[in-house]
Amino acid sequence: MRPRYFEDLKTGAHFQSKSMEVPGKAIIEFAEKFDPQMFHLDPKSAERSIFKGLVASGWHTAAMTMRLFVQTMNFAEGAIGLGVDELRWPNAVRPEDSIQVETEILATRQSRSKPDYGIVHLRNVTTNQRGEIVQTMTAHAMIPRRLEAVRS
Amino acid sequence: MRPRYFEDLKTGAHFQSKSMEVPGKAIIEFAEKFDPQMFHLDPKSAERSIFKGLVASGWHTAAMTMRLFVQTMNFAEGAIGLGVDELRWPNAVRPEDSIQVETEILATRQSRSKPDYGIVHLRNVTTNQRGEIVQTMTAHAMIPRRLEAVRS
Repeated sequence: MRPRYFEDLKTGAHFQSKSMEVPGKAIIEFAEKFDPQMFHLDPKSAERSIFKGLVASGWHTAAMTMRLFVQTMNFAEGAIGLGVDELRWPNAVRPEDSIQVETEILATRQSRSKPDYGIVHLRNVTTNQRGEIVQTMTAHAMIPRRLEAVRS
Repeated sequence: MRPRYFEDLKTGAHFQSKSMEVPGKAIIEFAEKFDPQMFHLDPKSAERSIFKGLVASGWHTAAMTMRLFVQTMNFAEGAIGLGVDELRWPNAVRPEDSIQVETEILATRQSRSKPDYGIVHLRNVTTNQRGEIVQTMTAHAMIPRRLEAVRS
């Protein structure tokens, strides 16, 4: 797939990622490093929690979403996150779930301060294998423009 | 330190985390798994990027912030994130930086649907060793109440 630049992103465009399996081991590994709470760490204790079983940290879901987003979008020179709004986790990711991300381009504009970049406002919706939404967010990202576009 | 419940969180209270060093190796390791973009992966290529050197993924900064938050707050039965707003990364985290988190309780209320829980609105500000802000966010979290408080 041809690497993408700012010019390749049109308002209203949708991009669908591949799906990614989430082993229970990965959930526990992330939790040990970054979110050591019992419902992310220990299947037995998690049974007695409000989740009734092991669940991934929301930050793990966010990180896996980024992984799928980066792979799908294949930006030629990367995307620089400026900020995220309305990050929500309506359902938890559980061991052996398979998740995927749909990206919608909400708006685009040229950067005022950096002529080599465009600013994209986008929405990412992450779903599991049953189509349940496990994460929603909107973000602003700075994406390099094609050199010929900058010079024109 | 005594584990905290909802009742221990008062509006306006501040909590300061310990500080945590961020090795370059950890930045690359996180990026390989979750945010494989060259300015997070490869110090040489990162030199030529807008960052002029290797920087941590914003999602890595968010995950390390969660780690420090969980350690500092020491919730008896965990904190369940309901959602995050205005997640911003005004400066990047770089290799060998040392980061810490200050938590401010913005508001608290009892859960309407779950009498065993309270809802806390909080703000986390993550800074580096020079006092520069590397992340800001606000979040709503569900925190278990003390049993005696629920029963009274």
